[in-house]
This record gives sequence, structure tokens and C-alpha cells, in this order.
Amino acid sequence: MVPHLITALTGPINELEQRVLDSMPAIERWFRLEWMEHTPPFYSSVDIRNAGFKLAPVDTNLYPGGWNNLTPEMLPLAVQSAMAAIEKICPEAKNLLVIPENHTRNTFYLSNLAQLKRIFHMAGLNVRIGSISPEIKEPTTIDLPGGGTVLLEPVVRTKRRLGLKDFDPCTILLNNDLSSGIPGILEDIHEQYLLPPLHAGWSVRRKSNHFKSYEEVSKRFGKLLGIDPWLINPMFNMCGEVNFAEGTGMECLTTNVDALLTKIRKKYKEYGINEKPFVVVKADNGTYGMGIMTVRDVKDLDELNRKTKNKMSVIKDGQQVHQVIIQEGVLTNERINDAVAEPVVYMMDRYVVGGFYRVHADRGVDENLNAPGAHFVPLAFAESTRLPQPGEKPGASAPNRFYMYGVIGRLAMLAASYELEATDPDAETYD
Amino acid sequence: MVPHLITALTGPINELEQRVLDSMPAIERWFRLEWMEHTPPFYSSVDIRNAGFKLAPVDTNLYPGGWNNLTPEMLPLAVQSAMAAIEKICPEAKNLLVIPENHTRNTFYLSNLAQLKRIFHMAGLNVRIGSISPEIKEPTTIDLPGGGTVLLEPVVRTKRRLGLKDFDPCTILLNNDLSSGIPGILEDIHEQYLLPPLHAGWSVRRKSNHFKSYEEVSKRFGKLLGIDPWLINPMFNMCGEVNFAEGTGMECLTTNVDALLTKIRKKYKEYGINEKPFVVVKADNGTYGMGIMTVRDVKDLDELNRKTKNKMSVIKDGQQVHQVIIQEGVLTNERINDAVAEPVVYMMDRYVVGGFYRVHADRGVDENLNAPGAHFVPLAFAESTRLPQPGEKPGASAPNRFYMYGVIGRLAMLAASYELEATDPDAETYD
Repeated sequence: MVPHLITALTGPINELEQRVLDSMPAIERWFRLEWMEHTPPFYSSVDIRNAGFKLAPVDTNLYPGGWNNLTPEMLPLAVQSAMAAIEKICPEAKNLLVIPENHTRNTFYLSNLAQLKRIFHMAGLNVRIGSISPEIKEPTTIDLPGGGTVLLEPVVRTKRRLGLKDFDPCTILLNNDLSSGIPGILEDIHEQYLLPPLHAGWSVRRKSNHFKSYEEVSKRFGKLLGIDPWLINPMFNMCGEVNFAEGTGMECLTTNVDALLTKIRKKYKEYGINEKPFVVVKADNGTYGMGIMTVRDVKDLDELNRKTKNKMSVIKDGQQVHQVIIQEGVLTNERINDAVAEPVVYMMDRYVVGGFYRVHADRGVDENLNAPGAHFVPLAFAESTRLPQPGEKPGASAPNRFYMYGVIGRLAMLAASYELEATDPDAETYD
Repeated sequence: MVPHLITALTGPINELEQRVLDSMPAIERWFRLEWMEHTPPFYSSVDIRNAGFKLAPVDTNLYPGGWNNLTPEMLPLAVQSAMAAIEKICPEAKNLLVIPENHTRNTFYLSNLAQLKRIFHMAGLNVRIGSISPEIKEPTTIDLPGGGTVLLEPVVRTKRRLGLKDFDPCTILLNNDLSSGIPGILEDIHEQYLLPPLHAGWSVRRKSNHFKSYEEVSKRFGKLLGIDPWLINPMFNMCGEVNFAEGTGMECLTTNVDALLTKIRKKYKEYGINEKPFVVVKADNGTYGMGIMTVRDVKDLDELNRKTKNKMSVIKDGQQVHQVIIQEGVLTNERINDAVAEPVVYMMDRYVVGGFYRVHADRGVDENLNAPGAHFVPLAFAESTRLPQPGEKPGASAPNRFYMYGVIGRLAMLAASYELEATDPDAETYD
């Protein structure tokens, strides 16, 4: 069930893991109290990198796809979490409309939709999928590779409500990250629950806001555990006006890359780490692994080739990149067979429901793995995230490692919750 | 994983199963709305009998033991449910004290305690076990058959609080059904959460109250599904003053057994069922499978032998039987190998977390299986209760059968919630 994980099974003793295990009741209580004050995102997934000496989230997705990559064992947990989420938000719900991404030919993505539909059906909802893609003009059934089908139906918008021809949902679940902006068809919907809120979309969201919130969360969590928050927090800088195609704004980038590399070098020295620091430059509103490059030396920025410039200029849905985040690079020392791997943790409401390893045989330990050629090894998180085994030597037990990943995933989820509160356009309006 | 179940796999087409599956979203919504108005018991287990033509709960336990009989796969679900329960009742909780039954030499029971401790520890609590048994005068470590140990510590009562020598819990979880009355040491605790409330104990609880509530629940549920509630409801009568040892109050018993057998016969005729009706006479406050006898003919009551009279006179903790419930007997047509089996569904908060089959090779289809010689076959409810498979022929799919069992279990849990509201001594006091 658990794949052969080099780091998990033979890695160096990890003091952090021991602290996390020892503090389990305190950690769970801390989360409980946080969720009394803050609302968790409806669902989320978090990419995590484990460098052996440091463990940090590097991306938090509020419209997670890839639910089909989870194990069958995680389904009951996801269903139970979906029940809990619905019960809190809209207990009277009958009908749920899922709004997917527009890539109607990507059968991996469509399998994800089928899985989401299954989860919410089992939680007790009538679920249908309403496409906002101009390609979907009538109900369209698409065969899935593993058998089964998925039915995409064109949405119907009335003045006040969004639905399908003969389907009036009380709740609308977005599985579309709104990279190209908030479509008019989703605006001014006040009678129905729209989840997650529109400002969670990438037309509003910024990675820099998220990691600012995460920094705050990691400081408080570090205090709870008595650890240096750097052990779980990737440092970052940002630049507001960068145009890779035209080469403008590169001084800002150079200065900040240099400054961050210096800061990382200092931290590595403090901890006696013999690794080469690197940073990852990312479009501040980027997703789908697009608009990302690794920079190991500030001089590399002078020699960007056309291909890299193009890659950094345009991201999902043809959006131009202007603002970038320069994030401390976190090595991933996890391997499955010989390929570099990073864990991805899936959450629904406040609960960790599963996860998988994203594995890429052709990428290095300091590179983005969310790229064509990646494959997925589902992890039995369902059997293990909440089953830490006290007494095991740190680093020697996969369940203990996975529990720690679930904690880090939840810290990033909590940061997203802070982030959404801070960016809520409807907050603090006094009518 | 799923044992060879004769009924589940080759049974007659079960219209009820089909209705339950077809109505899944309506059923889940109905439960959601019920739980907005009513508080589920903290935890519970329900014994269910499946006659093929009828499916009904026959006993609901509000201090479930036997958690050790569940599969490892159900642990994450139980932990998640425990988190949800704690979050609602006492999110600030740090320390949980479990008060067990006093049988300190029953290693099966002690394994159950170890499992409960594990579940609540993983939900993020410091858990210790505080015995109220006079035998436990100092911390006592007991080895468990499967490895591991369990530590029983004597409780310490102060004027206002209950705890251990160096352990002050905010929450006290009873796993002791209080058959012999509410011990003084548990009275007048107002500063700590005491779960379940004391009036859920068998010194206050009556089966007849429970099944009266269940009757009400089954009527409303029957309406929702458009079915005769009898299909899920065991009819019952009761007698208030019966003394088996002295032979007093037997006319009441005879009259009611006769009347109930007649009612069952009528129902069997209505449904064309060629089975011999029977009733089960139970101590109204009985537990542990004690004080139970099957009556197939009213004449049997005239010929009760000394053994039966003794069995019916005294139940757990030496309590005398006075009041009895006469319950419609529900055959169990489930078999594992050749032994008669009945499903037991486990719930924590509002969630079904698992279950097992209670199997007894020496008992008949119309007899109580909760008796020495029973064994337990854990069921992968965790993988199946929420994973019904629409489109499967009714009766042909174990997951669909288990989903239905989970629904019936939750109906009984809901009835217990009504029952506890009705018997709450603190309800409707206007100071």
C-alpha cells in the first residue's frame, strides 16, 4: 500500500517529526480553536516539499482537481467531510451544481469531476455538472478511460439564479479556478451558495498574500511547538512589475533573488546544511504549474533564453504575467523508485482526507514537478494521516511522516482561510 | 474483506433496499435537518436483525463496548467523527477521562478501552482511564492479549470535580452503562462535561421508551420513503410489574404476548410471510444480552423452568427485573458460514463509522445472539456504508446492504436522541 519511500523509511532523524508527534493533542486543540474563529476553505490541496531538514508547503490550491488520484480507501473520509461541510454551510441543500474547468477533452480532469460528483452524491446531494464552456451547447456525455461516463450540461442563467435546464441548485461548487477572470455568468448570484467565494479565484488571489498569511500561521505554530518557523516556512519576496518578454522590471527581480539567496545561505549556515540554495520564481497568480522557474544563481537571470522568457510570460488561459513571487526553493528529498517525488495533501472542510505523491522521473530535486510527464502515486493517507504511531523512531514510520504532512497541509489551509478573510470584498462593509 | 454473507449475496430482491438507495439524497438531507433540531448521542451501537422481509433494530447501546471488534480501516473515520463530536461539545478540551465498566479482568473489554483511548488520542486529546471500581486502589497496568497494555487509575473526586491524581479533565466519557444506578462519585458534577448524560444509563433508561421514540421515527421515515413503517419497526408491548421468581404479574405477560403474537400473525398474513411469529421478552432496563427469552407460543409461559425464571429475574450487576418489554421477534436470515449472524452498527456523533457481525453457531434464527459463545466478524463498513452502488440489483451488493444498515442504525440513534430529550431531568426547568 505504501510505496517504497527513500526519505520516509531511511531518512535522517527528524526532530520536527518528533515534536509534531509529541505535541499531537496540543496541535489538534490549536486547530480546533482556530476553526472556531476562522472558516476553512470548502476544499483544498497543498503541495508540500520535504527537504529532510525543512518541510514546507509551496502551493495551496482552493479548486483542487485530481480527486481521482486518491485511493478508494479515502472515499468514506471524503464523504464524511463533505457531509460535515454541507451540514455547516447549507444543511437544507438538495441539489449541487458543479462548475468545472473548460478543458472538456482532458479525460484525467473529467475523471476528477466524476469522482467529485460521486463524493457529493454519497454525502446526500443530487449532483450535476454545469459547464460554462462555450463548447458545451447541449448535454454532452463523455466516456472516461476507466469506464463510466461524465455528463456535462450547459448552465442556464436567469436574472437571479444559475442552474441547468431542469435543475435548480441551492449550492454551486466551483471546480474552476477563474484564472481568466470572473465570468459575468457567475456574478451577482446572491440567492445561491457559491463555493468557494469568487475572490478565491486566481483573478483575485495572489500567492504572495497566501504566503504572507502562511508566514503568520507558521510563526504562531512555531511558538506552540518551540521551533524556528523557518523549518516549515518558505521565505519569499515579490516584484510588482516584471515583463519577461520585454525585459522590463528585471532589476527588481535580480535584487530580490539575490537578497533571498543570501538569506537562505545564512539559514543554511546556521543549520550546517551543505546544499546549494535556490529560489523559485513564480507568477504571483499562476496555477497549473505554469510560469515557474528555478534560479540557482542571480547571474542566471541575465541569460534567460527565449523559451524561458516565453514560459514566464504567459500562464493558464493566456493570462500575462506581471507580478511575481520569489520563493525560497525547498528541495524535495523524497523519492519513489528513483524519481523525485513531492506529497500533495487533500482536504475537505477542516479534515485531511487523503493525498498522493506527485512523481517526475525527469526532474531534479530543486525543480517544479507539476509539469507534463508527472505521474501520481496514491498514498493511503486515509489509513495513516490520523494514525501516528507514538514510540516509532522519527523518520522510520510512514504513518508518522504522513501525519506530519497532514499537519503542514492544514497549516496552509488555515493560511488560506486568513488570506480569504483579508481579501474578502464584502468584509467590513457597513451598510 | 467482506465475508460470505448468504442473505446479502443471494437473498430475495429487497424492495426496501431499492427504495433506500433511490432515496439516498432525500434520506441524507432528512438526517441533516433532524440533527439541526436534535443532538445525536455522543456514541452508540445498534443491533440489527434482517429477516429478509423486514429489517429492524432490536437494541441500541449508548455506552458501546466492542470498539476493538472493528476493522483497522474504520479507525480514521472514528477519529474524524470523534474530532467532529469534540469540536461541537467542547472545542477547548485538552484532557479526557474515560470511566469504564468495572470488569477489570475481561481482556476483551479492556481491549475495547485501549481502542477507545487510541481513537480519542488521535482526535487530539490526552486520554486516561479512571476506574470507579473499588478493586482499583492504585494505578494498575494490565496486559492485553494482542500485545499492548491498558492502565487503569483510581478516580479522585473533589467537591466539584472528578479526575485522577495529577490529571484534571474537562470532559468525562462514560463507557459504563450505570446498570446498578448512578454512583455518588458521578453526581453533582457541573463544571465538567459528562458524556453521555447520566440519564442515558440503564438505571434511568427503558427499552420501552426507546422503542416508543423509534416507532415515531420509523413512521416519519416511512412517510418519507412511502413504505409501511412496520418493515423497519419491531412492534412491542410492555408489562410494569412482573416477578419471574415469584410468578406474579404473569397474566399481564400472557395477555400481552398473546396480543402481540396475534398482531404479528396478521402482519405476516398481509405480507404472505410463511414464518412462525415469535416475541422476545426482555428486561426493560436490561443490557449485556441478559434477561432475554424467546416466546413462540403463549403456552410456553406456563411452563417456564427454574433456569429460565432465574435467567429472567436478575440482570447485569445483580439488578432485579420488574418491568419487561415484549418485542416482536425479528428473524435473522443472515448467515456467516452456517452460523446465524446479526449486524451491529457503530456510530460516533452523527456518523456511521463501522460495524461487525455478531455470529453464534449454537443459536437459532429467532434467538438472542448476544450470549456466551458469540464471536465477531468485523465488516468493512468503513469502505462501504457510504459507498452504495446505484444500479446494482437489490440484494446483490454487500455495499448497498451495508448502506441500508447504516440508515437503520442512524434511525435508532435518532430515536435515542428523542428518548434522551424526553427523559432529560433538566429539561423544562424554569428557575
